[in-house]
Amino acid sequence: MLDKTTRMNYLYDFYQSLLTPKQSSYMSLYYLEDYSLGEIAEEYDVSRQAVYDNIKRTEAMLEEYEEKLLLFEKFQERSKLISNIKEMITSGDPEDRLLQAVAELEKLD
Amino acid sequence: MLDKTTRMNYLYDFYQSLLTPKQSSYMSLYYLEDYSLGEIAEEYDVSRQAVYDNIKRTEAMLEEYEEKLLLFEKFQERSKLISNIKEMITSGDPEDRLLQAVAELEKLD
Repeated sequence: MLDKTTRMNYLYDFYQSLLTPKQSSYMSLYYLEDYSLGEIAEEYDVSRQAVYDNIKRTEAMLEEYEEKLLLFEKFQERSKLISNIKEMITSGDPEDRLLQAVAELEKLD
Repeated sequence: MLDKTTRMNYLYDFYQSLLTPKQSSYMSLYYLEDYSLGEIAEEYDVSRQAVYDNIKRTEAMLEEYEEKLLLFEKFQERSKLISNIKEMITSGDPEDRLLQAVAELEKLD
């Protein structure tokens, strides 16, 4: 299991375009630039609690989007398959096995 | 350019999970099962105009999601690359060219 920060970084990366500009700024400062809640609150002249609530809600939204669209999960599966295919190519695996591996990749979509 | 029905079928397929149950039912009846607006209106006991408005709004939502997430566009690019890779495998292309093609696929994510 990934730690929460890494997971949120990935989910933010995949679903960022679905967030409001404010949600996106808070998440980016908190998760990518490692600001504290207090620092974000000061930057935006709001209460620490308001920042906390907004970030919690955004995290829940990102998890909901992932539950519905599975972009991160599919990305991980695709990465595994692609890295297998590269290994098979490098070790000179036969044509039929390569084609089979590529077909699995195709099925993911 | 794909005709509108085909495009909507694809977008519906990719973003269906983000629609409400009603939006999803109307779209599915209209685009997948080829019901007329009047037939859907009768089925749900609402006006033909209400069905029309709902479907128009849903179509716009699907296009907005595609603008933000590009799932259909990336799917098409991935399909092209995968079909190239299969051809290269079948025609016995050398290892370095195969690896290059797989790397392009990887970059898409």
